[in-house]
Amino acid sequence: MSKLAASLKVAIEASGLRNGMCISFHHHLRSGDFVLNMVMDAVSEMGIRDLTINASSIHDGHKPLVEHMKSGVVTGLETNYIGPVVGRAVSQGVLKNPVIFRTHGGRASAIETGTSKIDVAFIAAPTADIQGNCTGKTGKSACGSLGYAFVDAMCAGKVVVITDNLVEYPLADYSISEVYVDCVVEVDSIGDPQGIVSGTTRITRDPIALRIADMAARVIEASGLLKNEFSFQTGAGGASLAVGQNIKERMLKKKIKGSFALGGTTGYLVDMLEAGCFETILDVQCFDLKAVESLRGNPKHVEITASHYASPTAKSSAAEMLDVVVLGGTQIDVSFNVNVHTDSNGYIIGGSGGHSDVAAGAKLALVIAPLSRARLSIVVDQVLNISTPGRCVDALVTQCGIAVNPLQPELRHKLLEAGLPVVEIEDLRKMAEELNGVPHTPMFKDRVVGKIIYRDGTLLDEIFQV
Amino acid sequence: MSKLAASLKVAIEASGLRNGMCISFHHHLRSGDFVLNMVMDAVSEMGIRDLTINASSIHDGHKPLVEHMKSGVVTGLETNYIGPVVGRAVSQGVLKNPVIFRTHGGRASAIETGTSKIDVAFIAAPTADIQGNCTGKTGKSACGSLGYAFVDAMCAGKVVVITDNLVEYPLADYSISEVYVDCVVEVDSIGDPQGIVSGTTRITRDPIALRIADMAARVIEASGLLKNEFSFQTGAGGASLAVGQNIKERMLKKKIKGSFALGGTTGYLVDMLEAGCFETILDVQCFDLKAVESLRGNPKHVEITASHYASPTAKSSAAEMLDVVVLGGTQIDVSFNVNVHTDSNGYIIGGSGGHSDVAAGAKLALVIAPLSRARLSIVVDQVLNISTPGRCVDALVTQCGIAVNPLQPELRHKLLEAGLPVVEIEDLRKMAEELNGVPHTPMFKDRVVGKIIYRDGTLLDEIFQV
Repeated sequence: MSKLAASLKVAIEASGLRNGMCISFHHHLRSGDFVLNMVMDAVSEMGIRDLTINASSIHDGHKPLVEHMKSGVVTGLETNYIGPVVGRAVSQGVLKNPVIFRTHGGRASAIETGTSKIDVAFIAAPTADIQGNCTGKTGKSACGSLGYAFVDAMCAGKVVVITDNLVEYPLADYSISEVYVDCVVEVDSIGDPQGIVSGTTRITRDPIALRIADMAARVIEASGLLKNEFSFQTGAGGASLAVGQNIKERMLKKKIKGSFALGGTTGYLVDMLEAGCFETILDVQCFDLKAVESLRGNPKHVEITASHYASPTAKSSAAEMLDVVVLGGTQIDVSFNVNVHTDSNGYIIGGSGGHSDVAAGAKLALVIAPLSRARLSIVVDQVLNISTPGRCVDALVTQCGIAVNPLQPELRHKLLEAGLPVVEIEDLRKMAEELNGVPHTPMFKDRVVGKIIYRDGTLLDEIFQV
Repeated sequence: MSKLAASLKVAIEASGLRNGMCISFHHHLRSGDFVLNMVMDAVSEMGIRDLTINASSIHDGHKPLVEHMKSGVVTGLETNYIGPVVGRAVSQGVLKNPVIFRTHGGRASAIETGTSKIDVAFIAAPTADIQGNCTGKTGKSACGSLGYAFVDAMCAGKVVVITDNLVEYPLADYSISEVYVDCVVEVDSIGDPQGIVSGTTRITRDPIALRIADMAARVIEASGLLKNEFSFQTGAGGASLAVGQNIKERMLKKKIKGSFALGGTTGYLVDMLEAGCFETILDVQCFDLKAVESLRGNPKHVEITASHYASPTAKSSAAEMLDVVVLGGTQIDVSFNVNVHTDSNGYIIGGSGGHSDVAAGAKLALVIAPLSRARLSIVVDQVLNISTPGRCVDALVTQCGIAVNPLQPELRHKLLEAGLPVVEIEDLRKMAEELNGVPHTPMFKDRVVGKIIYRDGTLLDEIFQV
């Protein structure tokens, strides 16, 4: 009767996992996650091979995965993001089949519509009861929202919850319901709290980045969207946070009451909620402890699923209601296409995550980037890989001026009226080349190591072996 | 882009509703619900016919439905309960096809597994935003939990949310997510607050009922289940509430800390939560305003879906974890089969609701009933209709003694040890007959007007035209 398995291996056996199947993981424990590695070690010891992993993201803490790819335990990977460590190995051809890159919204959609089938979902749960009701809000490994894991729980053939904080039935404040859970495993630790909280959630002190952030805030103001009912998403990078800070000051000064903030949540966004800048945070992922605490205690801060965040096949999503999103990029080209998958050398160092989802949904999608990083041009003639199509990007904000997508003449007009330094993106590319020289094109092999699938399921680009 | 429809008819047209389809409703507004009637009037005026209604329950306020049955607008009905007014008409043969009676858990299961297909779900929502995020916790027609409506929203082809409290996006404390909603309609009023709150939630003052309630509490105590971690469900009838009151006093006196209370929630259950008798209320339906307020404000009082409550095909449900449930019945026979569908004259006056779900799930399922009501025997040789099979009922508690199901010899032993008046059910039947005479068997026609489908989807019994 009980769902409680004596060990992880017992749970895996009970799940019926066999060679060739697909297993899934969520990434809310980020680089501190122990669960993916512990499941893969157990699976490997059990002699199961030829698995496809469907993980919302792969972080550097998942480095042991490379060995499982080499040994043939893992031959396929579907994910929305791969950090540089595993990314480099994949770019070098370690995985048998090309990685299928999706977006956060696209992954939810693909699983819900049956395009991506999951045989067994392994759900790292900071707190769970013996029947599998679970949450990320509490426990020693608390990570906050479990937003990306709902679809795994709801659609996988078998669902195994792995927790290091087993509580008595019923866990009242559950996120994922027992109705989806087959099996519960208690382990010593599901993750390292230091790694669960991202190290990136500090506002930049770099003067160029601060200049860009200030310019981005001016663009948002000039766009006319910064008024009551304003809604906003920004990333957790230092420059993005600086944009948020700028926006916060403007909102407080002008007594603007925004509507909602969306996406991955940081303490800075929580400060904005508490300061009255927003009515609500819709939270699909927490980046720091302050965000976790706020989600736990503030009824205005609510967990949403990946579908609710940005699925293109949901009947609607929050992304579609978004006014402004501030995004980054490793490269942006003169057609406004953005690359967040590979670095200038062609190595996989990331992925779309929600980048192209919110770029498509928001009324104003800004990319902020310096002209160059480490003597490499960011603004280029053609990106090595298209992660987000240029048609969804409204403007590029750099330290040397703002390039507006020709598809948005009205925005261009508004920025010029506000006296902002509007330039042509072609000129930004030239300036970047003057600084850094013409970018060297990496040598690629013919073999495809990654396919970038757009949120609607179509093939957007391919990544070649370096 | 907007989901907001200008009128109900516009929404119905947009839903693609055609002759012969199935539409669904939830019953959280109970007899105060205006939504079923207003949709049926609109549908009728639009000339759509031959519809099947799948409603979690039909109440007396839905009397106008009888006319739609007569006119052929409605030819089929799937439901878990029909109140006496519409029930009488159905028993007289007004509906073309037999009613398919399910249970609260069985309905969720049938919809989720595709046995019951819903083309268009109409969801009465006391508060909703323009994208369809909605809740029953707030608004002038607040009804609390929307537990039974989740499955409709998640599985119907099209979903129309009807609200009398439209709020700005996003509604933070939503129950049902916009991802499931196609269309939102604003109307003046979705229900009469007087009817939303049941009139039955008062403790009985009838001395016989009080005697039975006291006896039931003694049975629960003698069973050994009334200890820490105790979990409990009771109905909203006056005698059931009296059992709860008795249990509360015993728990407080013995400092017993229970685990959870389940099911339809009343203020009395809320009092028990607040007094520390339970850690949590898992709430699939609120019966009164105090329950609504508690659900809105107390984090220990949580809304659950019908699946989570009692679906037999969910990977687990709260019903399975239940210690004790106290149930009623219109008839119980010497094999412990219980009838809650028809009265002694064979007229439909109710339905299983969660009766057979929790009887199957709970460790101890008690039926409480007087020997007779209005000079009609309640304990009979054979029930007119089997709603809950006798194998799931552990004991019958009457004012003249307690009959224990022969399948539970250990319980019988415990009750005898506690000095409780254990009798044979056959003797109770005889006493009832001595009081009231041998029950007259109603005259039925050959035509089947209702099929009672057990929670597992099998046919349990048929109801004949009176």
